[in-house]
Amino acid sequence: MTLNPLPRVMLEPLVRSALLEDLGRAGDVTSDALIPSTEQATFALTAREPGVVAGLDLARLAFHLADNTGALDVTAYRSDGDRVSPGDVLATVSGSARSILTGERVALNFLGHLSGVATATATIADAIAHTHASVCCTRKTTPGLRAVEKYAVRAGGGANHRFGLDDAILVKDNHIATAGSIATAVQRAKGAAGHLMAIEVEVDGLEQLAELLHDPVTAVLIDNFTPEMAAEAVRMVDGAMVVEASGRVNAATAPALADAGVDIISVGWITHSAAVLDIGLDYA
Amino acid sequence: MTLNPLPRVMLEPLVRSALLEDLGRAGDVTSDALIPSTEQATFALTAREPGVVAGLDLARLAFHLADNTGALDVTAYRSDGDRVSPGDVLATVSGSARSILTGERVALNFLGHLSGVATATATIADAIAHTHASVCCTRKTTPGLRAVEKYAVRAGGGANHRFGLDDAILVKDNHIATAGSIATAVQRAKGAAGHLMAIEVEVDGLEQLAELLHDPVTAVLIDNFTPEMAAEAVRMVDGAMVVEASGRVNAATAPALADAGVDIISVGWITHSAAVLDIGLDYA
Amino acid sequence: MTLNPLPRVMLEPLVRSALLEDLGRAGDVTSDALIPSTEQATFALTAREPGVVAGLDLARLAFHLADNTGALDVTAYRSDGDRVSPGDVLATVSGSARSILTGERVALNFLGHLSGVATATATIADAIAHTHASVCCTRKTTPGLRAVEKYAVRAGGGANHRFGLDDAILVKDNHIATAGSIATAVQRAKGAAGHLMAIEVEVDGLEQLAELLHDPVTAVLIDNFTPEMAAEAVRMVDGAMVVEASGRVNAATAPALADAGVDIISVGWITHSAAVLDIGLDYA
Amino acid sequence: MTLNPLPRVMLEPLVRSALLEDLGRAGDVTSDALIPSTEQATFALTAREPGVVAGLDLARLAFHLADNTGALDVTAYRSDGDRVSPGDVLATVSGSARSILTGERVALNFLGHLSGVATATATIADAIAHTHASVCCTRKTTPGLRAVEKYAVRAGGGANHRFGLDDAILVKDNHIATAGSIATAVQRAKGAAGHLMAIEVEVDGLEQLAELLHDPVTAVLIDNFTPEMAAEAVRMVDGAMVVEASGRVNAATAPALADAGVDIISVGWITHSAAVLDIGLDYA
Amino acid sequence: MTLNPLPRVMLEPLVRSALLEDLGRAGDVTSDALIPSTEQATFALTAREPGVVAGLDLARLAFHLADNTGALDVTAYRSDGDRVSPGDVLATVSGSARSILTGERVALNFLGHLSGVATATATIADAIAHTHASVCCTRKTTPGLRAVEKYAVRAGGGANHRFGLDDAILVKDNHIATAGSIATAVQRAKGAAGHLMAIEVEVDGLEQLAELLHDPVTAVLIDNFTPEMAAEAVRMVDGAMVVEASGRVNAATAPALADAGVDIISVGWITHSAAVLDIGLDYA
Amino acid sequence: MTLNPLPRVMLEPLVRSALLEDLGRAGDVTSDALIPSTEQATFALTAREPGVVAGLDLARLAFHLADNTGALDVTAYRSDGDRVSPGDVLATVSGSARSILTGERVALNFLGHLSGVATATATIADAIAHTHASVCCTRKTTPGLRAVEKYAVRAGGGANHRFGLDDAILVKDNHIATAGSIATAVQRAKGAAGHLMAIEVEVDGLEQLAELLHDPVTAVLIDNFTPEMAAEAVRMVDGAMVVEASGRVNAATAPALADAGVDIISVGWITHSAAVLDIGLDYA
Repeated sequence: MTLNPLPRVMLEPLVRSALLEDLGRAGDVTSDALIPSTEQATFALTAREPGVVAGLDLARLAFHLADNTGALDVTAYRSDGDRVSPGDVLATVSGSARSILTGERVALNFLGHLSGVATATATIADAIAHTHASVCCTRKTTPGLRAVEKYAVRAGGGANHRFGLDDAILVKDNHIATAGSIATAVQRAKGAAGHLMAIEVEVDGLEQLAELLHDPVTAVLIDNFTPEMAAEAVRMVDGAMVVEASGRVNAATAPALADAGVDIISVGWITHSAAVLDIGLDYA
Repeated sequence: MTLNPLPRVMLEPLVRSALLEDLGRAGDVTSDALIPSTEQATFALTAREPGVVAGLDLARLAFHLADNTGALDVTAYRSDGDRVSPGDVLATVSGSARSILTGERVALNFLGHLSGVATATATIADAIAHTHASVCCTRKTTPGLRAVEKYAVRAGGGANHRFGLDDAILVKDNHIATAGSIATAVQRAKGAAGHLMAIEVEVDGLEQLAELLHDPVTAVLIDNFTPEMAAEAVRMVDGAMVVEASGRVNAATAPALADAGVDIISVGWITHSAAVLDIGLDYA
Repeated sequence: MTLNPLPRVMLEPLVRSALLEDLGRAGDVTSDALIPSTEQATFALTAREPGVVAGLDLARLAFHLADNTGALDVTAYRSDGDRVSPGDVLATVSGSARSILTGERVALNFLGHLSGVATATATIADAIAHTHASVCCTRKTTPGLRAVEKYAVRAGGGANHRFGLDDAILVKDNHIATAGSIATAVQRAKGAAGHLMAIEVEVDGLEQLAELLHDPVTAVLIDNFTPEMAAEAVRMVDGAMVVEASGRVNAATAPALADAGVDIISVGWITHSAAVLDIGLDYA
Repeated sequence: MTLNPLPRVMLEPLVRSALLEDLGRAGDVTSDALIPSTEQATFALTAREPGVVAGLDLARLAFHLADNTGALDVTAYRSDGDRVSPGDVLATVSGSARSILTGERVALNFLGHLSGVATATATIADAIAHTHASVCCTRKTTPGLRAVEKYAVRAGGGANHRFGLDDAILVKDNHIATAGSIATAVQRAKGAAGHLMAIEVEVDGLEQLAELLHDPVTAVLIDNFTPEMAAEAVRMVDGAMVVEASGRVNAATAPALADAGVDIISVGWITHSAAVLDIGLDYA
Repeated sequence: MTLNPLPRVMLEPLVRSALLEDLGRAGDVTSDALIPSTEQATFALTAREPGVVAGLDLARLAFHLADNTGALDVTAYRSDGDRVSPGDVLATVSGSARSILTGERVALNFLGHLSGVATATATIADAIAHTHASVCCTRKTTPGLRAVEKYAVRAGGGANHRFGLDDAILVKDNHIATAGSIATAVQRAKGAAGHLMAIEVEVDGLEQLAELLHDPVTAVLIDNFTPEMAAEAVRMVDGAMVVEASGRVNAATAPALADAGVDIISVGWITHSAAVLDIGLDYA
Repeated sequence: MTLNPLPRVMLEPLVRSALLEDLGRAGDVTSDALIPSTEQATFALTAREPGVVAGLDLARLAFHLADNTGALDVTAYRSDGDRVSPGDVLATVSGSARSILTGERVALNFLGHLSGVATATATIADAIAHTHASVCCTRKTTPGLRAVEKYAVRAGGGANHRFGLDDAILVKDNHIATAGSIATAVQRAKGAAGHLMAIEVEVDGLEQLAELLHDPVTAVLIDNFTPEMAAEAVRMVDGAMVVEASGRVNAATAPALADAGVDIISVGWITHSAAVLDIGLDYA
């Protein structure tokens, strides 16, 4: 699947806010004091560890928006979604040395964080690549960054779950408890959903799954199932619904679930706990 | 040191944005479909693993701002900065079940992320507690969340470095290279700094440190020094400057640096790579 | 289907902006000049023509946010989604006469516009009420008001289509032309969609429909079909996809399409061309 | 009267908001999935029914801001205020096919809505063109769009009334009732108005008009007068004030009022109930 | 003329922005470090020099929005527009000492600045109080504060000129030069103005005034006229237009112009150069 | 010390807001009515009185953002920080006459105000130029303009104090009173401050100063000291702390304090009460 860039109109407000957050009320006093305004330089965004890149457009914007000269150039040698090795140059940045150093941290904060999300995603995607299952994100994202974190998941070879509370119905235990039964819950969900709104129901065991199969929905979320239970669930569903597995899955535990035949493995930590990918800005 | 809350006027825009990001253009279609608007319930924010809490005010705001009834109550049993064990109830939330489920994810995303930062900070703070050194954050924060992540560092027992490019001068290798020498760099920095603006200079070895000691500044940042070099640096500085050590320090490597006598150990990963602290919302 | 209110956190920015747009840089100079600040009054929001109400929460907010006293009361006698007749009092507003007159126009602009959308929707919903078809909105909404116009469609008994470009795939003629064939287009769409993202394809005739049936998607949009063609389409699809009809449908032409058995009739004019519902604010 | 464009600084925030509203959190998933990023195309904005155009600058901005390539061209063949016939090409849009399809709906939503307002205005302007009267808008505008709707009224050959509560005094029945008499109301209004702030008073009959003529203001609003009453009002005023007529006027009833000699006929529905002008985007 | 408060919805964004500007990314570190969160105190906003007060609502909001306890009380003893003497207590503020000190500077910055504007205005208003002339502001205001500075002018007993470029036509020398003659300029202005939009023309001498009198407008602005020329201008106009005088007028030169019979004296420095009124916050 | 420009990303939001404030809901109706859209002209920003310039970048942005043609040119002949004499041309602006007149007032409001601040600063800087003391601003700035006013202070040759409540600790009388003693206050401050956060303590007399010298901090603020007391304070401190003097200092009283040997003289009125520098826009 091709990775498509997000429109600049979606990225620009994030980068402007991040720059203002870092510039504060006096700007970059260090570079202003130490770097002559006419000093030109070329720097390289360089990977320091292996991983998958995401966020180059945000980094590019950070350098451009931190620059007053209008003459800064960012040339990318890698694209979001590319695998990189230590020492790989992702892009070079040429122009006012002061502008580049002023934008550096914001550029790296976006690039490192999103590449971290992409890399975490790829770790699991790789582990289950021999199956038809795909790894998928959740709504456990960093406040303010959902659109770009979900983009980074795509960059890492993952799929996207709901983007918010509004674009699909996901019936969980609390909802079922209130409705009184899965049957009632499903009936209410179907009554509320538009014709393009998918419905997914979380089940806590095979009995609930059997109950759900009387009135199937788009997808079933099997939470904290063992691989054996997951395999049984896949057999029971037999293609009537998409089968999604969740429950603190990691790269070690994902393959068994994928081998069990589930379609989707959703993992919170690829967005909420991914470590940054170490990328530096070096004199080129 | 007491932990002081941030004013609500700083937190509210973050929570409003995060809610709008999650509610999208249709709101919480699942809860709307399945939870009667009159349903009342009490839920408990419960720790599922040991750690340090941060973000309770943001979670509280998320529930209140997701609620249309004006009758929702959040009662906290723990405070930001508290150590918690699995099963500990941090707060209870009572009121409209629908409002609570609508605000749940935003509340947990803030609370989990910031508690993760606080917990990561505490891990290092604990490891060096027998020394006078303190662990300190960097500007490697998540775009948009700097103020609250730095708050979470304080909650975890850490200290804060610069809040942005504007509130202190931090002279790094690129700046020194441009200036030509440490002496020139320091001279320019002192000429630019106001009387309340601190100056810190990063040195890459003991020779540079010796050069800096001819004209000391507020603090010296020794980057990637071994504990032995750090100890020698501390001896050379002899109280003339604050000594800060950095360079991918973690809980395992921090004690040796702290034992070497440095004052500050700054660590990027406590903000950029901290895993979320697992906190759940359970029926109470 | 119950109509659920949107969270206040979604409505408040709209009302604040609308008030600032109307208050300009001097506020309500007329009421300030002519109404003593202590004058109390009660006004009634009264329907002047039959229709369906939508927007009462926005009107309520407009009065509250235009009021400095904190002592204004809005009591509603009707709810969004209710059918009203001329003379029906929807709500009374009591408190500072000046505050009420200051907020009047913004309250009425929201209430009249959204009730107009709800009423237009209901006109078509009524015309096809004897069938299983439902009337549905489009993305042809007023810039800035999509969430509340889609809400008004629900208030009028209609269903919602996509909320934006991002929450479902809708393949139209230009996309098919670029892809080269329906088969390729569908294949690409399925490759890109997450497991909760619906896919709809627009066809311009029965031949394209036949082609699509080789690889069905969530829904098919039959555009500008005669009722006879629509009936044939329903027969061909035979439950394999949701069948949506569109093409400048109005209350007069909708029944024949609905009688043909389609599931959804989408109509742009219920949002882009609905006349305002006449509602006034009278001394009570 | 020449129609002058609004500065881009006023339009850009509207277009950015509308694009973000449509792009949501994932962007245009359909075009991303189906249109290669390198695909170039030319489309034509084409009128499908007769009317008056307004909003071309907003449409142009929508295409440009939805485009990441920086190489999109919009060439206009008609200007705001022009009369168009079905099939007339208003503008062509050339560049990335994906960018154009991504911006299409926002461009058309602005263009269709504002052209609808201009066309509705022109309908009345045409009907009274043989008199000296002009058609005028009200504050019954769509929240958030007042500046551009008032611009569209000018594009349709109409005049503008107050832009908000703050730029003129308009004394209505409730204000007169509170003041106790027209005389007192006028006296208070004159005491409050700056030297550049106009005052208009609404009267409900000829007696009130006579009362007002003892102390004339800038304009009198005769509400719900028959043409005969309006003619008598014009005679009584005899040039001492501008005479504005209102009261659910439409193209059929406007001529009689205009023939009666009034100066201004203000009509709410040209902004609050104008149907969209049907304009499409076709492969060129 | 009574001074009417601006709606809170207009003031709140200004105060929130100002607080965020002052709180930065860490809040009030001094008060947090030194004032226990439970400490209660009462402070008095006290005038330190004679003047006219304006901005009490903004100050009140600043204290409330800087306070997290919800239990802070502001009791006003004076109102905007009141004359005060050194030592007069304008208001007391009771509650959390920390909240009060955190909000102090923002409260005083608004209150001091706007009271300064009101006081400067009153200085001129007093100097011409024996005439029928009034002192009036211009568009020479501080960026971002126009609405509240114009309010402060009203508090000081002054009148308001245009609020922006959009609410009246003001023809100046450059416009006349382009039009070629006053006659053409006036004709174009009348063709463009709506029926509630006033027109003012600036003349540089009595000849231009004579030319303007052939086709009078709402007001004439006589710029840099001596009192003698102004008296002649008043005679020539003879009530046909409002006569406004401008040209670096101050309290010493205003009376002669007012005695000459002009209606309005507009003065830029009451907004752009007014010194702050010294108001302090003292332990009560 | 070189004056460094602020990044455009910090200035642009200020200029956009100021333009929208002035353009209101109809734009520049005068220029639109009187200046043909094709009219080209060149204007000169010209000093009308002697002073120091600040704000040229803001003025440039105002003209560019008020222009729809994309072909406007601003050429600067002076730089921020330059001393100018009456008649000096600071910059020429060439392009659409209408665009230039539309942007004029916002450009001049920024330029005049900030040049006023720079000029006021320079007045004091000049008066103490024979000493080592520097003049310094406070937090008594205009709400919303702190970053640019502090920049203007630098343009005028002054130094900057704290930028907000968050970037240094400043212990004042109320804080000392609450803490009970200077010793306790200093101890609490040192416990709270990070290693790069300066601490300053205000003392009201020599006794408090003596107390403070037992545990010195970064700087001491001697408030309302006579020059004799200031000289004694300097002797007592003897280089252990920076000595800052304050207390309604002006150009007449500053030299005596500077001669007494203080390091910093902080003055509120250079930001809160500076008169505008008179700069005009003339046909060139």
